[in-house]
Amino acid sequence: MKKQQNNALANAIRMLSVDAIVRAGEGHQGVPLGMAEIATALFTEHLKFNPEDPTWPDRDRFVLSNGHGSMLLYSLLYLTGYEEVTLDAVKNFRVLGSVCAGHPEFEQTAGIEVTTGLLGQGIANAMGMAVAEAYLRARFGTELVDHYTYAFVGDGCLQEGIGQEMISLAGHLELGKLILFWDDNRITDDGSTELSISEDVAQRFRVGQWHVIEVDGHDQVAVSEAIVQAKADPRPSLIACRTVIGRGIPRVQGQRGGHSARLFNDDADATREYLDWHHAPFEIPDDLLQSWREAGRRTRADYDSWQQRLNKLSAAERYEWDRVQAGKLPEGWREVLHQYKQNVSREEGAKPGIFASAEINDLLCDVLPERMVGCADLEAPTSHKRSQRAFTPDDRGGSYIHCGIREHLMGAMSNGMAAHGGVMPLAVTYLAFSDYERPAMRMAALMGLPVRFVFSHDSIGVGRNGPTHQPVEILASLRAMPNMLVMRPADAVEAAECWEVALGHRTGPASLVFAKQELPAVCGAEATENRSRRGAYVLHEAEEGERQVTLLATGSEVSIAVAARRELQQQGIATAVVSMPCWELFEAQDTEYKKQVLGVDTVRVGVEAALRFGWDQYLGERGGFVGMTGFGLSGGVEELYQHFGITPEAVVEKVKTLL
Amino acid sequence: MKKQQNNALANAIRMLSVDAIVRAGEGHQGVPLGMAEIATALFTEHLKFNPEDPTWPDRDRFVLSNGHGSMLLYSLLYLTGYEEVTLDAVKNFRVLGSVCAGHPEFEQTAGIEVTTGLLGQGIANAMGMAVAEAYLRARFGTELVDHYTYAFVGDGCLQEGIGQEMISLAGHLELGKLILFWDDNRITDDGSTELSISEDVAQRFRVGQWHVIEVDGHDQVAVSEAIVQAKADPRPSLIACRTVIGRGIPRVQGQRGGHSARLFNDDADATREYLDWHHAPFEIPDDLLQSWREAGRRTRADYDSWQQRLNKLSAAERYEWDRVQAGKLPEGWREVLHQYKQNVSREEGAKPGIFASAEINDLLCDVLPERMVGCADLEAPTSHKRSQRAFTPDDRGGSYIHCGIREHLMGAMSNGMAAHGGVMPLAVTYLAFSDYERPAMRMAALMGLPVRFVFSHDSIGVGRNGPTHQPVEILASLRAMPNMLVMRPADAVEAAECWEVALGHRTGPASLVFAKQELPAVCGAEATENRSRRGAYVLHEAEEGERQVTLLATGSEVSIAVAARRELQQQGIATAVVSMPCWELFEAQDTEYKKQVLGVDTVRVGVEAALRFGWDQYLGERGGFVGMTGFGLSGGVEELYQHFGITPEAVVEKVKTLL
Repeated sequence: MKKQQNNALANAIRMLSVDAIVRAGEGHQGVPLGMAEIATALFTEHLKFNPEDPTWPDRDRFVLSNGHGSMLLYSLLYLTGYEEVTLDAVKNFRVLGSVCAGHPEFEQTAGIEVTTGLLGQGIANAMGMAVAEAYLRARFGTELVDHYTYAFVGDGCLQEGIGQEMISLAGHLELGKLILFWDDNRITDDGSTELSISEDVAQRFRVGQWHVIEVDGHDQVAVSEAIVQAKADPRPSLIACRTVIGRGIPRVQGQRGGHSARLFNDDADATREYLDWHHAPFEIPDDLLQSWREAGRRTRADYDSWQQRLNKLSAAERYEWDRVQAGKLPEGWREVLHQYKQNVSREEGAKPGIFASAEINDLLCDVLPERMVGCADLEAPTSHKRSQRAFTPDDRGGSYIHCGIREHLMGAMSNGMAAHGGVMPLAVTYLAFSDYERPAMRMAALMGLPVRFVFSHDSIGVGRNGPTHQPVEILASLRAMPNMLVMRPADAVEAAECWEVALGHRTGPASLVFAKQELPAVCGAEATENRSRRGAYVLHEAEEGERQVTLLATGSEVSIAVAARRELQQQGIATAVVSMPCWELFEAQDTEYKKQVLGVDTVRVGVEAALRFGWDQYLGERGGFVGMTGFGLSGGVEELYQHFGITPEAVVEKVKTLL
Repeated sequence: MKKQQNNALANAIRMLSVDAIVRAGEGHQGVPLGMAEIATALFTEHLKFNPEDPTWPDRDRFVLSNGHGSMLLYSLLYLTGYEEVTLDAVKNFRVLGSVCAGHPEFEQTAGIEVTTGLLGQGIANAMGMAVAEAYLRARFGTELVDHYTYAFVGDGCLQEGIGQEMISLAGHLELGKLILFWDDNRITDDGSTELSISEDVAQRFRVGQWHVIEVDGHDQVAVSEAIVQAKADPRPSLIACRTVIGRGIPRVQGQRGGHSARLFNDDADATREYLDWHHAPFEIPDDLLQSWREAGRRTRADYDSWQQRLNKLSAAERYEWDRVQAGKLPEGWREVLHQYKQNVSREEGAKPGIFASAEINDLLCDVLPERMVGCADLEAPTSHKRSQRAFTPDDRGGSYIHCGIREHLMGAMSNGMAAHGGVMPLAVTYLAFSDYERPAMRMAALMGLPVRFVFSHDSIGVGRNGPTHQPVEILASLRAMPNMLVMRPADAVEAAECWEVALGHRTGPASLVFAKQELPAVCGAEATENRSRRGAYVLHEAEEGERQVTLLATGSEVSIAVAARRELQQQGIATAVVSMPCWELFEAQDTEYKKQVLGVDTVRVGVEAALRFGWDQYLGERGGFVGMTGFGLSGGVEELYQHFGITPEAVVEKVKTLL
């Protein structure tokens, strides 16, 4: 392929992008015009993919981390022949219903590997994909798994802290098949990068143990050669590409306005002239389109031979491969949980909430080899490494990732692993640190990715570490997030039940929230079915007369509600206890069930060592709440429960006031 | 001071810390024992402070960013003579009510500059302090402002992304009076740092344009010399201190358990022997205590001469100095807002919500020179730089900080500026990016710092940039946070009113949330008083009969409620519109006022382009809600409002269904 031809290929990206942005009336021209040659080099000479089978498991992954440059991706997908990305869809860039949304939105059948646009998320996703690839390669062999992960990244992704977390851990883990392209255009939204940064970014990657190549990003030959080197190097690679933002649009190229200043028809005309491009808007001449479509078929032979290798698998091997690719759970997973539940319901005494989750995960190790656990430097207190080896450069079969003190990366990496497929990521830390991880959790919810976020130390039950470490508002803030299951089990039985639901839940993430402190068995003996699956259930019905009072509680406060009920019943007040491990599941129940659980015309009191915010939907106008009203304090756990008045006595008193 | 003496000084820290941790039954010995010599060098030879006047404005600031090592700080504060940190308080380490809480909690009269413990926050706070110092030095001169900011930092703070954001921007801004001490002990909670990091951290600082000195952290002379060099260098300095974690406790020093493994009486005994320390628990021999107390008085002469310089100020200068130190607002600030309100209430037409805030801030520039605005690379779309110069190495009088794409740092830096005092920080970005900033916002709320977080692009009104950029759950998640005012003005009049409240609010942060899109004037003509100060108010009372319906709305949806009311009134349904710019302020009103606003026995419908979560407390059992039920979409704004059914017609329909 001659360079001249290549320039035309790159210019096809440019003009499609300009035409779409002008038509939409808004968009970000900086990336598609500045990275056109880089994208052309990658997609026409290196990327292993098949637009006719966009979800081919062994495809190279491509992530546009600087997602505002979405027209670059859509141009590539249309040009290389992804069926869902039609010319009409491109013309309808940013119009409601078009797959060509303002920012790329997770749609793998259309070639969009992940949703990007919140800066820094994409490169962390890409790293997660590279981890998943390495793990699966160790598990299934290079015959089936042997692909690269490429990501385009702008200054924003590398200024965000998560960018450095990624650099640091990817270098440490020697993820050699991860290759980034930095769009080094020296411009951000505010103007020159000199306004906010003076460091040598490439050098920062070198310090992080990366392989770094610096090239002219408009020299396609140089970029292509850099990719060859990057693929050969055992370290992750940064190809630092010096570029001109918005290159090709005379009025704005190389300028602040190159980023996203509004473009007009005049700009499109001027760009046509500048690029010597003599075709109508959205028209790609046949020969050029054919060249691009050929690029889309370039690795077809790889695809075909991969299919042949797949077909040679034994039936058992094939079953297992198909199973993990589909994210299907294996035979026997449910029995493990049921057995655990039976065992713990026979046990006496209490155990730390998080340890129930740890025990469950230990038991699941063998049956779910696709489980990969990330933890942000809290191995001992969360105890989720049992029976696992660390994932390291020397042991890609390890399924436990020491993420370091990098919660944000851990979450976004987990999203990337889930988007990659074939593995089942868990991310473990304390609930108070979930705020660090939250932007990634939001992306998991938005994409509907089945990531399990596991949290320990879920309330003032943290004790003496004090209010920094005591989440009081975080349950509410997670419950506020759409498409996120938030589960807070009351004991080991509910822990098993919630894990059963969470593992079966494929359409979005789940947050599993556990206490640090010991929880007595409260759901034990009666737990013959999974009562948690409906989100809330009557744990103890009122006795001796019609129900007057309903106590609603979650997690560590269920035992408080049970004790309060005992006292109330003794005083002749017919009281039920409802355990509510998961509000979102309860919301999905029918009205009749909800009524039955919440009780009609009863006084309802919520009990949770957290703020009331959000509870009112269940309490009704006569309702009350026993919980926190502000941040916690440093002190002993029992002392704190007394101090903040979250006790059976306080519940009894609240009920009697309300009656 | 001889080295032998110094070792005894350092060992006093060690034994106090071990005794307190053993007594508490938990704590983190790694930092106080590993950084004892470093702390001794700093506090006995360099730190400018006066324990008898802990809030002396020109004191050097000291931040323990690795806050879990809190006993280091408490030991220093007790030994140097801070009155509030008594030996009893130390003995009651981690006991409810002691100032010696599990993690340091903001209490400047006790010498605790900021709350730390969420890793990475402290160093970003410290950077904010250094920014505040530089700005105030430019404004008031070195006679009054000339101090250093020192921070101790562990591996965690530097693995967290915010750490890199800080390195990058502090280096860029050449904050030469910021000096960090890295506790390079090669151990984290999980064990060896080799589990999660392989880079040369010191080199990363060098890339970030820092001055780096590497020393043996147990050689007090070397540390002291490094401090001398650091103070002289115009760049921010990292003193990388090679240390042994938990040094002095034979069983755990240099080991994983050195971090926070439980210590017992035997450990205290063994430490005594190892350190050749022959004193009872909590007993510091007189001569040693006197040496420490002398260290506390070491810079008394600096203090006295500073007071003399202060006393020489003219009355006007002194007034202004005292005013900004006290965080008091100047004469005339309120008039600026009132004038603006009058002007906009006479204007016809609409303006982008965020631009009202921009105009207000422009007007405030002159009257509030202590205002410092940080913005995360969104100068043009948020427009809060008007009439200001950038804060740069060459212009310390600039009051606008180009923070780059580093929201988390921006928030935590703002906290540090507020904690420093003398400046009034604002932090500006899009609401969708607030999740990145949230951990810092939580700390502002926990500390009760008057930081104003300004957000634009507050709903699906963002339009074509799509769901990544459209907050739907974030209002709820912020409202869930204790001690945080969340304000969402309906138009420019309410914007002025909310700013008036926010500026006067000193006991915690405020989030001011603005629309991107144009907002019509809806509160205009009647705005003779500040109605927003009560959080919610009747914007339009029902007409022709007793109120049947109350529409509750915020921000951009108030105009929708107003239009719906018009239609309902025409249909003979007596309907009131309540504007609710700030729930937290409304919650503080008396029951009578609340009843009057919400209406008794009326059907209430909430209208907000966000999720219902949290709204039920105002809607009652008969209530309804018109808003979002999940994430947004990419499309035109009006189209999206139609698509999601957030229209006057939908409100009318909802009301009629409920009636």
